[in-house]
Amino acid sequence: MNTANYQYLFFNDYSEGAHPRILAALQNSNDMQELGYGEDDFTLQASDLIQQVIGNQAAAVHFVSSGTLANIVCLSYLLKPYESVIAVSSGHINVYEAGAIEATGHKVHELSAVDGKLTPDAIHELMNRMTDEHMVKPKVVYISQSTEIGSIYTKKELENIATVARKNNLYLYIDGARIGHAVMGKNADMNLQQIAELADIFYIGGTKNGGLMGEAIVIPNPNLQAEFRRHMRQKGALLAKTRTVSIQFVEFFKDDLYFANATFANQMAQLLAAGISQKGYRFLTPVLTNQLFPIFPNAIIAKLKPLFGFYEWQKLDNEHSAIRLVTSWKTQKSAIDQFLASL
Amino acid sequence: MNTANYQYLFFNDYSEGAHPRILAALQNSNDMQELGYGEDDFTLQASDLIQQVIGNQAAAVHFVSSGTLANIVCLSYLLKPYESVIAVSSGHINVYEAGAIEATGHKVHELSAVDGKLTPDAIHELMNRMTDEHMVKPKVVYISQSTEIGSIYTKKELENIATVARKNNLYLYIDGARIGHAVMGKNADMNLQQIAELADIFYIGGTKNGGLMGEAIVIPNPNLQAEFRRHMRQKGALLAKTRTVSIQFVEFFKDDLYFANATFANQMAQLLAAGISQKGYRFLTPVLTNQLFPIFPNAIIAKLKPLFGFYEWQKLDNEHSAIRLVTSWKTQKSAIDQFLASL
Amino acid sequence: MNTANYQYLFFNDYSEGAHPRILAALQNSNDMQELGYGEDDFTLQASDLIQQVIGNQAAAVHFVSSGTLANIVCLSYLLKPYESVIAVSSGHINVYEAGAIEATGHKVHELSAVDGKLTPDAIHELMNRMTDEHMVKPKVVYISQSTEIGSIYTKKELENIATVARKNNLYLYIDGARIGHAVMGKNADMNLQQIAELADIFYIGGTKNGGLMGEAIVIPNPNLQAEFRRHMRQKGALLAKTRTVSIQFVEFFKDDLYFANATFANQMAQLLAAGISQKGYRFLTPVLTNQLFPIFPNAIIAKLKPLFGFYEWQKLDNEHSAIRLVTSWKTQKSAIDQFLASL
Amino acid sequence: MNTANYQYLFFNDYSEGAHPRILAALQNSNDMQELGYGEDDFTLQASDLIQQVIGNQAAAVHFVSSGTLANIVCLSYLLKPYESVIAVSSGHINVYEAGAIEATGHKVHELSAVDGKLTPDAIHELMNRMTDEHMVKPKVVYISQSTEIGSIYTKKELENIATVARKNNLYLYIDGARIGHAVMGKNADMNLQQIAELADIFYIGGTKNGGLMGEAIVIPNPNLQAEFRRHMRQKGALLAKTRTVSIQFVEFFKDDLYFANATFANQMAQLLAAGISQKGYRFLTPVLTNQLFPIFPNAIIAKLKPLFGFYEWQKLDNEHSAIRLVTSWKTQKSAIDQFLASL
Repeated sequence: MNTANYQYLFFNDYSEGAHPRILAALQNSNDMQELGYGEDDFTLQASDLIQQVIGNQAAAVHFVSSGTLANIVCLSYLLKPYESVIAVSSGHINVYEAGAIEATGHKVHELSAVDGKLTPDAIHELMNRMTDEHMVKPKVVYISQSTEIGSIYTKKELENIATVARKNNLYLYIDGARIGHAVMGKNADMNLQQIAELADIFYIGGTKNGGLMGEAIVIPNPNLQAEFRRHMRQKGALLAKTRTVSIQFVEFFKDDLYFANATFANQMAQLLAAGISQKGYRFLTPVLTNQLFPIFPNAIIAKLKPLFGFYEWQKLDNEHSAIRLVTSWKTQKSAIDQFLASL
Repeated sequence: MNTANYQYLFFNDYSEGAHPRILAALQNSNDMQELGYGEDDFTLQASDLIQQVIGNQAAAVHFVSSGTLANIVCLSYLLKPYESVIAVSSGHINVYEAGAIEATGHKVHELSAVDGKLTPDAIHELMNRMTDEHMVKPKVVYISQSTEIGSIYTKKELENIATVARKNNLYLYIDGARIGHAVMGKNADMNLQQIAELADIFYIGGTKNGGLMGEAIVIPNPNLQAEFRRHMRQKGALLAKTRTVSIQFVEFFKDDLYFANATFANQMAQLLAAGISQKGYRFLTPVLTNQLFPIFPNAIIAKLKPLFGFYEWQKLDNEHSAIRLVTSWKTQKSAIDQFLASL
Repeated sequence: MNTANYQYLFFNDYSEGAHPRILAALQNSNDMQELGYGEDDFTLQASDLIQQVIGNQAAAVHFVSSGTLANIVCLSYLLKPYESVIAVSSGHINVYEAGAIEATGHKVHELSAVDGKLTPDAIHELMNRMTDEHMVKPKVVYISQSTEIGSIYTKKELENIATVARKNNLYLYIDGARIGHAVMGKNADMNLQQIAELADIFYIGGTKNGGLMGEAIVIPNPNLQAEFRRHMRQKGALLAKTRTVSIQFVEFFKDDLYFANATFANQMAQLLAAGISQKGYRFLTPVLTNQLFPIFPNAIIAKLKPLFGFYEWQKLDNEHSAIRLVTSWKTQKSAIDQFLASL
Repeated sequence: MNTANYQYLFFNDYSEGAHPRILAALQNSNDMQELGYGEDDFTLQASDLIQQVIGNQAAAVHFVSSGTLANIVCLSYLLKPYESVIAVSSGHINVYEAGAIEATGHKVHELSAVDGKLTPDAIHELMNRMTDEHMVKPKVVYISQSTEIGSIYTKKELENIATVARKNNLYLYIDGARIGHAVMGKNADMNLQQIAELADIFYIGGTKNGGLMGEAIVIPNPNLQAEFRRHMRQKGALLAKTRTVSIQFVEFFKDDLYFANATFANQMAQLLAAGISQKGYRFLTPVLTNQLFPIFPNAIIAKLKPLFGFYEWQKLDNEHSAIRLVTSWKTQKSAIDQFLASL
């Protein structure tokens, strides 16, 4: 795909380089020698900072290079051979990871979503069906915060999911590729600490929030920490130079950079949404985080296509489709103005 | 492990940060927007450069974050469920990857090494034994260039391995975590192009030769390229920000940085080896690349231990052991002088 | 479950022992010495007979001990790591095999069924969605003939499935646990030969049609036969005493015993269905093979429950449910009379 | 292989049909209706009988169709993803099961055997090496009783293995394909109860001791019983007509048939061994169970080859090889006389 003529890429929040402070941190630490495989000082420091943010000094923290790898490592760690994971059918592990979880031997149950979110009712209904020992045994609830369509689980909703999970002896795993955007999202009512109190295990995404690459796996549940590094090693997730990832997380969490990046991306999304609304267009789903799904007539989409990078998301009728726009920590107001001017 | 009081870490070639040009390249490209998942311009450019280096425009090139991930992705791609891989018992996949290959469903045959290297005779002998359909079917020969003990396959040796592989309908896969050190090693008689002509698939290591992290998988064999990206995706190896790795390989190969780094590390190893020899100590195995295995009396090792970072490798008798020292693209002469002065 | 007081078990067609001729055949062959692992004369003979029945001397035939094992062996043989299998959500591999296919590393796509059957439209719609290399790649269509609810693919329907499969480069695999009941079913319009001409691979079920245990895997597609025995060996499916299964298939196919057994079971189902209809009850789905799903008021079900073995299948409203009754090669008219008398 | 002209097959103890009482038991139970999937009365009865034999009413007992399937089901049940199993290099799982254990994701460590047997020293040495979290973690000791070469672990030897296993937090799994021949073997000093007191899990082989097919998995360790049936289901090992296997084990253990069969096979082996010795030939290893490995000049082997079925086992020098002869519950004295007469 030739992107040279685009005015701006709204494809993804990982279309950008890294936040300048991230690069500076790598530069500043570059002359230090460190131990490999996550036994370096930066990994220790980043773990401490994340433990503080979530208010749990006993949580284990590990750094990996990609979100799919985080999902693979965590889910295959949690599951016995005959156990399975519950997700919405639009869930990342169910659609966009080329069968990564099944490749580790486990079924992904595809449940219907409401506004992109898994519901306690859907879990309940599944558990009522999966009662026979000839069936796979659900053991983990997988959700994304924020979701694939940018929606956010409210505190109440997440508590309800956690409650139904505990009642059914299920672990709760949260894919936090955009967890920063979620906690800083519009009307968001919970922070990382509150999420960490409900989840057995989750990850904090760096790739989509200004990092060079990398995610931080967090394990609040003390019973799910043994041999985790060995398991990471096996999946190719234990990096010789873990410092390259953990230095980024030191920078993210030594002050509020992680949250500031997400807030900025969300604000740009609101700005873009307001402009689009003002021009009379509607959205597939409310804009709460940094993903927008405006509905345009096909003619408008055709006009936008050579100018901006974005994905066509869903055909609504013969004349209208929703597209996906993603803002980031780096999206400039000028790009938004250009987009709005092109409508 | 508290490393604060060490004068220098000889633990590993990944104890360092990145070569300054690598960081500069990231800095210089930081404001560009790029497509994700390896469809960016830098990945294209790095692939082109590597294709030129190996003299094969039809080779596929892919970038991943770790060597174990490269091994996982490549070997599980090559093997049918009932097929297996041949390695020496000291091979990285057989010892240090926590069963990564078996976790993808495949047996690793452990053969005896000669000077750290697999021999055609050992392959031949195995193939003569594995003739029964009740047995797993060997399909890939795995070797490391340079090996786990720093030795190098000569051109003749690699040709002989490739010949026995072809005769037995086996693929040849080369783990190139330290392939730069191998081609620039003492008495080395083959370059990357010659290696690429013999291997069906191999990887060029960045992590151990001055990169921030990352390796380049190269697939000269045109029959082994289809759906490789999908397979990488499944194993968590397709990075959203592949640019972070591929930019490094642009820098490595746009001139001779990759080879210069390895040459420097090898030279420092020779300097260190010469000094150790001069003091009357011998080595477990000849020093050809950037790994040294000097044999010291236990008293000397005890004296060195609080001063330098290194691994004790092998107990030889009640009074002597071999230790492992690794030099890198960044090892300073001063560190070597300090080490020699401490003997 | 205490079944001692039941007048008859309609639970399953495998509630019975074996057809007397099967036992006699085992008895008659008992003093012969044979080679192990499917290299015996009976395996050869049974293969020949099945090749004749399907009119394809080049088909490979293998004998295994269970249907789930047949599914595991066949599907994992057909699929590359990143490939998946398409089934209806009620498909046996998707519900009742405890994640057996996922345990071999592969996703099962769950499509909606029409009358228990997969439709070309559903396959077509899935293939239109699965176009991204970040997604798993569908490679096999899995159907059951007859289906989980006793319905039968007509010749036209199966041809259409085969056509859409071929167009999309998908293999067609048929789970034939009750394939005898299908080809001898009410209004059935195709025989085993015609099925074998459309399927790439399928199995002929013995367990549910009068055998002691065991199924015959048949591979008409000549490109899918290499190393199949080695693959069976790995999955624990290659039996040392394969003769125990293959002798049964000699008996099934040396005349028409296999078809006679299925025909009898189907006839008993029709007799039972006629009686139930006569009493004014309806069925969830037409009775075509040996599974019946009559709809009864809850009071009737409560009355039947201590008298007969059967599964409650589906709650229809607060006062009615469908139950499942299965007849077999051995079901006696007296059992049917007793059941009807109890309504 | 055309076996028609052989006077007798000494290939294997599964070359025969079934013991007449086994067939009679199937015949006698044939008209009973039973529940499927191991919930039948015969499975209950066989479990009870085996619990009595081993003196442990809390042991779980399950029936499967093959030894490889027993190994797959048990070992994959015991192991976490990053754990491995220890065996001798000649172990069945390491050689003759086409990578079955690795296919479930787990490494098999190949240790040197002494007289076909694993030693505590070898386990100890391995555990001393496997101390790094970058390595796979050994968790199960796999041994065969009797071994692949017919030798028997003495009570003392097995206790020592169990002790080293417990000290290292390893489970002890015993492949009992020929466990009857072991406990009834020459100089044998332990019975099934004593074995069951040391093993965490083992299986009692039926296939090689007069059954039609099938093995009984026994789990004395109460912590290793949960969800075992579900796990069997997933591996294709839970048979719809489990009765077909369990009826055989009722017959085996309702009196001493199981032990009588093994004793007979062992006696025939002693008879054959005595005759061979008397003619001046030696053996590769002492004859303790029903496998014999006599050493013959090549000329003798060439002469025997058209007359009897057996495997050539090992070339000793240019003029001598060892062959393998296996006797069974059915081997007649006349066959032995014929063999001896042919020497």
